[in-house]
Amino acid sequence: MAVMEATVPDWLGTSIMAARGVAKGKIGQTHELTEERQGKYHYTIGPYSDPVMTVKPGDRIRVWTQDCFEGRIRSESDKPSEVLEMPYINPQCGPIEIEGAEKGDAVAVHIESMVPRGENPRGTCCLIQEFGGLTGTTYTATLNDPLPEVVRKINLDEHSVYWSDRVTLPYKPHVGTLSCSPEIDSINTLTPDQHGGNMDMPDICPGHITYLPAKVPGARLFLGDCHACQGEGEVCGVAVEHATITTIRVDLVKGWNITWPRLETEDMIMTIGSARPLEDAMRIAYRELVFWMVKEYGFEKWDAYMLLSQCGRAKLGNFVDPKYTIGAAILKSLIGR
Amino acid sequence: MAVMEATVPDWLGTSIMAARGVAKGKIGQTHELTEERQGKYHYTIGPYSDPVMTVKPGDRIRVWTQDCFEGRIRSESDKPSEVLEMPYINPQCGPIEIEGAEKGDAVAVHIESMVPRGENPRGTCCLIQEFGGLTGTTYTATLNDPLPEVVRKINLDEHSVYWSDRVTLPYKPHVGTLSCSPEIDSINTLTPDQHGGNMDMPDICPGHITYLPAKVPGARLFLGDCHACQGEGEVCGVAVEHATITTIRVDLVKGWNITWPRLETEDMIMTIGSARPLEDAMRIAYRELVFWMVKEYGFEKWDAYMLLSQCGRAKLGNFVDPKYTIGAAILKSLIGR
Amino acid sequence: MAVMEATVPDWLGTSIMAARGVAKGKIGQTHELTEERQGKYHYTIGPYSDPVMTVKPGDRIRVWTQDCFEGRIRSESDKPSEVLEMPYINPQCGPIEIEGAEKGDAVAVHIESMVPRGENPRGTCCLIQEFGGLTGTTYTATLNDPLPEVVRKINLDEHSVYWSDRVTLPYKPHVGTLSCSPEIDSINTLTPDQHGGNMDMPDICPGHITYLPAKVPGARLFLGDCHACQGEGEVCGVAVEHATITTIRVDLVKGWNITWPRLETEDMIMTIGSARPLEDAMRIAYRELVFWMVKEYGFEKWDAYMLLSQCGRAKLGNFVDPKYTIGAAILKSLIGR
Amino acid sequence: MAVMEATVPDWLGTSIMAARGVAKGKIGQTHELTEERQGKYHYTIGPYSDPVMTVKPGDRIRVWTQDCFEGRIRSESDKPSEVLEMPYINPQCGPIEIEGAEKGDAVAVHIESMVPRGENPRGTCCLIQEFGGLTGTTYTATLNDPLPEVVRKINLDEHSVYWSDRVTLPYKPHVGTLSCSPEIDSINTLTPDQHGGNMDMPDICPGHITYLPAKVPGARLFLGDCHACQGEGEVCGVAVEHATITTIRVDLVKGWNITWPRLETEDMIMTIGSARPLEDAMRIAYRELVFWMVKEYGFEKWDAYMLLSQCGRAKLGNFVDPKYTIGAAILKSLIGR
Repeated sequence: MAVMEATVPDWLGTSIMAARGVAKGKIGQTHELTEERQGKYHYTIGPYSDPVMTVKPGDRIRVWTQDCFEGRIRSESDKPSEVLEMPYINPQCGPIEIEGAEKGDAVAVHIESMVPRGENPRGTCCLIQEFGGLTGTTYTATLNDPLPEVVRKINLDEHSVYWSDRVTLPYKPHVGTLSCSPEIDSINTLTPDQHGGNMDMPDICPGHITYLPAKVPGARLFLGDCHACQGEGEVCGVAVEHATITTIRVDLVKGWNITWPRLETEDMIMTIGSARPLEDAMRIAYRELVFWMVKEYGFEKWDAYMLLSQCGRAKLGNFVDPKYTIGAAILKSLIGR
Repeated sequence: MAVMEATVPDWLGTSIMAARGVAKGKIGQTHELTEERQGKYHYTIGPYSDPVMTVKPGDRIRVWTQDCFEGRIRSESDKPSEVLEMPYINPQCGPIEIEGAEKGDAVAVHIESMVPRGENPRGTCCLIQEFGGLTGTTYTATLNDPLPEVVRKINLDEHSVYWSDRVTLPYKPHVGTLSCSPEIDSINTLTPDQHGGNMDMPDICPGHITYLPAKVPGARLFLGDCHACQGEGEVCGVAVEHATITTIRVDLVKGWNITWPRLETEDMIMTIGSARPLEDAMRIAYRELVFWMVKEYGFEKWDAYMLLSQCGRAKLGNFVDPKYTIGAAILKSLIGR
Repeated sequence: MAVMEATVPDWLGTSIMAARGVAKGKIGQTHELTEERQGKYHYTIGPYSDPVMTVKPGDRIRVWTQDCFEGRIRSESDKPSEVLEMPYINPQCGPIEIEGAEKGDAVAVHIESMVPRGENPRGTCCLIQEFGGLTGTTYTATLNDPLPEVVRKINLDEHSVYWSDRVTLPYKPHVGTLSCSPEIDSINTLTPDQHGGNMDMPDICPGHITYLPAKVPGARLFLGDCHACQGEGEVCGVAVEHATITTIRVDLVKGWNITWPRLETEDMIMTIGSARPLEDAMRIAYRELVFWMVKEYGFEKWDAYMLLSQCGRAKLGNFVDPKYTIGAAILKSLIGR
Repeated sequence: MAVMEATVPDWLGTSIMAARGVAKGKIGQTHELTEERQGKYHYTIGPYSDPVMTVKPGDRIRVWTQDCFEGRIRSESDKPSEVLEMPYINPQCGPIEIEGAEKGDAVAVHIESMVPRGENPRGTCCLIQEFGGLTGTTYTATLNDPLPEVVRKINLDEHSVYWSDRVTLPYKPHVGTLSCSPEIDSINTLTPDQHGGNMDMPDICPGHITYLPAKVPGARLFLGDCHACQGEGEVCGVAVEHATITTIRVDLVKGWNITWPRLETEDMIMTIGSARPLEDAMRIAYRELVFWMVKEYGFEKWDAYMLLSQCGRAKLGNFVDPKYTIGAAILKSLIGR
């Protein structure tokens, strides 16, 4: 628990969240969103469910997340096709209402910490039929036989993911699915889009701040799908999935009418696009970054476009159906922040 | 109105709807879904709204549809960006509950007739900024200046669409958006997917039968977005949009657990896929057709696949964001029906 | 052989070829491009090979084509992976030099007739591993096991393709691969692009005229890959492949600097685009058609774009790697021809 | 020049090139490929041109490259559309024959150093009409007006790229276009594919080794298109283009029959895929990496696939028409090297 009582890292004081958020960097009350408080989980992200709690800008919430299979894959002999039932997958905690949020605002989510919970083997990875980057899928429909349903149960702790006798990976957790509600639609928890959703972006991790567009009163924040580690492009469609206690601090940037999710770290700013084909995710992300540089950092449009060709950074996130996710970033040092 | 009282065309008696539907080809009661009965329209297709009526399999409904702009584009000097407000676009009538429908059934919708309503110029076409097939869009994000907002108001009647001094087109109406509700999601009225939605498929027209998967009790049928004519691939994103009285007859095929929409005419059977990129829509449609030929018409899988390479027919529907639609078809004469 | 001695169909006299071609509709000398004359075939389309003959505009050539497997698949027990050797596939006849052709001209190819040659079973269809529309491929790289290597040998004559006990299809032949040479590149015979190539467009058939951009002196026409029939979208990647005598008449439209192939029939004009993803093939084809309508038929640009949304016709051609092909067409009656 | 005479970095001794190359890590003769020696440049990469020199495995070549515009963009008032002439763009040095190379071998290219040459402003960036990631293009054909033709001339030296008053970037050069000849095709210098080509991959830089499949006797190495710096995804289609002296050492791995280019650094191994849509480039790269891990590093196939989902790294290269490039990588420390 030491992590959460740590002093706020220095850079946060200069973040957009601190500078423009309603809470002005002050930390409010801490709320516990336990399994009991949550009750049933959500498999669609929209405006039609009852909020589990209402918090104020600056408040901190400790969220007991489930893994994306809701713990149903218990052993390596379980078959995903038998224990999972579509579309009841990727359970989300929330929705959390943020006081004062309205359409046209942005919600800031600073992930303070993530710690695994539950007994080992806490981690799960598997191959799900017709799902993943290197297989025919529901959309990239082929007549090939599906891949086998391989399941891996993996020990992990706050330091390492013990993948195999041969390979140990560092524990570098992130939140796979983070969203505010769309205005009138309700989107399944597998799809990323303007509302956030299943972005599977490794940069949505402890220490970083994600900004999401608010579309409804209270914004209605959903969160789940935590990964113990993940590559660039979640190529088989499944990371090392695990249950966590994820501690976030939320704030509200009034009148910051962003179209797509944005992200901020100590070193860079990022815009996140989700679409198919993958080049459209890339186009969205880079175009949003051009727009941002022009509007808030004083760049001329064509200068920003050409400059990003020289120093832009692209991060691959979700690489499974139904939409892919890419983040485009630039160093703060290059934009005068 | 003569059209609607016409005797049922002969081929319908041999249709899947007649052979396997609960109503066994019998025509039930006629319902009127007027503007008054409808009240407010729907801009998202899901399970969260109240049904406007409940009908029995075999019943006929006369639906007073609005055009996809809800009549807000009144003259050629109106600007779409000023009179339209996203996401409140493409208003849908319904939802109509069908008695006895359950998850795992298919809903059959036979369009008996479509007649234009309202005063001329009844038809509207326009260019909407960042929307359409030959322009950068929200997803295919570019830095180019948008196309101009051109509006066309068009006279039309039951025979012709008077496009310009130079060009008159035949009135060949179809229903652009036809859906049953998803199970837990609610999908905006611009997106086609497994539930149907904004397929913009010219074959969903008078005389043809569309089959949609039921996912919730009562199936919840939505309908709107009627076109006076449309090319193969709605390339600028807008057809000749108009308000209609569209008369449909619905039925229920119990236990016909289809994944994607299907369509039947006197001559052919069709499967309909919607996805991006466009090749995935094509893959879905042709794979579903292979599966159908194997399961219900006695073809060996590889024979069906190779045969479709020789005689399959592909129809382009929706060709605007967020998803594209393709239908794949085979003549009934080639499958022994 | 009666077909070839038939009088020229009436509409040809009003074609672009007749009106603007150097030969002014006159039929010149007939050349025989037999197997002996051809010698070895070409598997790449470019400017680096020696011409097999030089013809004048208006001349007719009877081309003895091989099937796309060069006859190597002799029985249903042959395995494509054993008898075929990449990249030596899809053998092309030619190059035929056309006197007077220069960069910036268009070559017109009127297919007068196609007749099958060789002994039955003359037709071949098969599944090639990692090739086709409904399978993982070299480019859409998956880890699924490949499809089986099924081979079909098919009897066919000038009337019918005897697909199976159950299915007989009409003999509706077309030329799968038709090209002029690129300027400096040499493109494999599986890829369609601006030069023509492996378009697999069923409309490139007897009675129709294809126009190809000339890029080098003499234009260097290549031809092969004849199909006895084919669906819309060659979905398994292989049609009913067969050897033919294909009789073409060529002409030259000086200074008609087209970017992509075009096609003309009695009823319509078509532009042909090839690209991936499939929507880009569609965009190319429809944009070229807009440009054509504006430049040569007096349409205003936005009127053409919106009109095509109402009456454009889209034809699917090649639907296998490495590029897909779509034709976009409009009726001549609608453009005042 | 000090850079080039430096001792060979330690890790090279453990590289695949050293371990399996014909030269066994020994450095041979140094050749000068000056402008005079080169004579005319090549705009298409194939087997049809005369080699400029023949070298032995282990030999070093100092290549005087031109920038991708062949120096034609001299000032910020030059218009690319006026001074450039397609397809005579992206001039390549070579082809260099490597003694003993045959189809089925791999050519190793270790870039030892890159230094800028010519007078400042040596660097050029620009917007080319219908070319780049955030604009309609020749393939993603739109009706929008093109972007303006902005040109930037940029001072640069071996330390920095002086982009603007506001922004200075580090000089981190790489080779944009590196290829061996295809077997029978000749591919324009803008397209990346299995032969290498215009990959625009920032990791093809000093210190790293690229492996390319040999397809013809002598392999025929081409090189050009050097960038002073570049982002991940060359988003506007143009990097800071500049003329260089690029010093490479080449070797030959006999019988290493790779399908796509590969890359090795001190820390990682990478596979490189090029295709459209972008997800196919990603699929190719990750599949090749799975195959490599299975064949040469003792991984079980599904273990490799799932492991890469946890720790794979993806790098964006070329992001302009006609094909996009992605590299997929894994740390050597994770595969026991």
